[in-house]
Amino acid sequence: MENPFDDTYYMKKALQEAEEAFDKGEIPVGAIIVIKDRIIARTHNLTELLNDVTAHAEMQAITAAANFLGGKYLTNCTLYVTLEPCQMCAGALYWSQVSKIVYGARDEERGCIALDTKLHPKTKMTGGVLAEEASALLKRFFIEKRNLN
Amino acid sequence: MENPFDDTYYMKKALQEAEEAFDKGEIPVGAIIVIKDRIIARTHNLTELLNDVTAHAEMQAITAAANFLGGKYLTNCTLYVTLEPCQMCAGALYWSQVSKIVYGARDEERGCIALDTKLHPKTKMTGGVLAEEASALLKRFFIEKRNLN
Repeated sequence: MENPFDDTYYMKKALQEAEEAFDKGEIPVGAIIVIKDRIIARTHNLTELLNDVTAHAEMQAITAAANFLGGKYLTNCTLYVTLEPCQMCAGALYWSQVSKIVYGARDEERGCIALDTKLHPKTKMTGGVLAEEASALLKRFFIEKRNLN
Repeated sequence: MENPFDDTYYMKKALQEAEEAFDKGEIPVGAIIVIKDRIIARTHNLTELLNDVTAHAEMQAITAAANFLGGKYLTNCTLYVTLEPCQMCAGALYWSQVSKIVYGARDEERGCIALDTKLHPKTKMTGGVLAEEASALLKRFFIEKRNLN
């Protein structure tokens, strides 16, 4: 039997978070942190609401997961995020020593791959999971925003 | 007459914050954000107390300054930090569009210069202000920590 708790399953949860961000007028990016098939953080971008450039989904997820675990390192955890992390978030993930990063859509311009941000040697990263869905939501957001202005 | 509010003046304030961190058993790094000769944020590293790898002095300073200003961009602001920012903090400073970064000691291993983190085109960075004092405090911290273990 197929494991229902695969990367697509968790990325769907991250996408639900991205949709919540969308509904609040935030750039729609969502994140989830999982340890042993258990979700311990669900967050979405809140930079507008909090007036804070550091309030990316991943940053909040790192803080929430550390609070849950009672320790600041996220070894044995996987972060699912609908958009490839930026320099700031990849830098935070470096410090967290997270085991795995799974992203949805690539960010060719401001993502950590293009900008060559250093990940922790213990961290693996893969991407492209539900990339089209994540990308379509972002495109829809920016089109609607442009039409409002 | 010399302007008393020069880089050394503000870096001394950032060093006072680093000393507060030291007294709490935190890696001693302090930060200050200044706009038009007014200090609008004073912070120090709190990663141990908050159990949160994202709680670097600069991250907290960005959040505090944005709260003070009521907007998330730090244009016209200068950040003083006793240690060269890491990838995460430099990435956050990128998003903040801060005008100027002044750091104390270099971080040859994990600093944003060695790791080539991209700064915002509007941001200028200089360093070496009270570098010896900042560096001496960090060295003292790690020596004392080693002796305790």
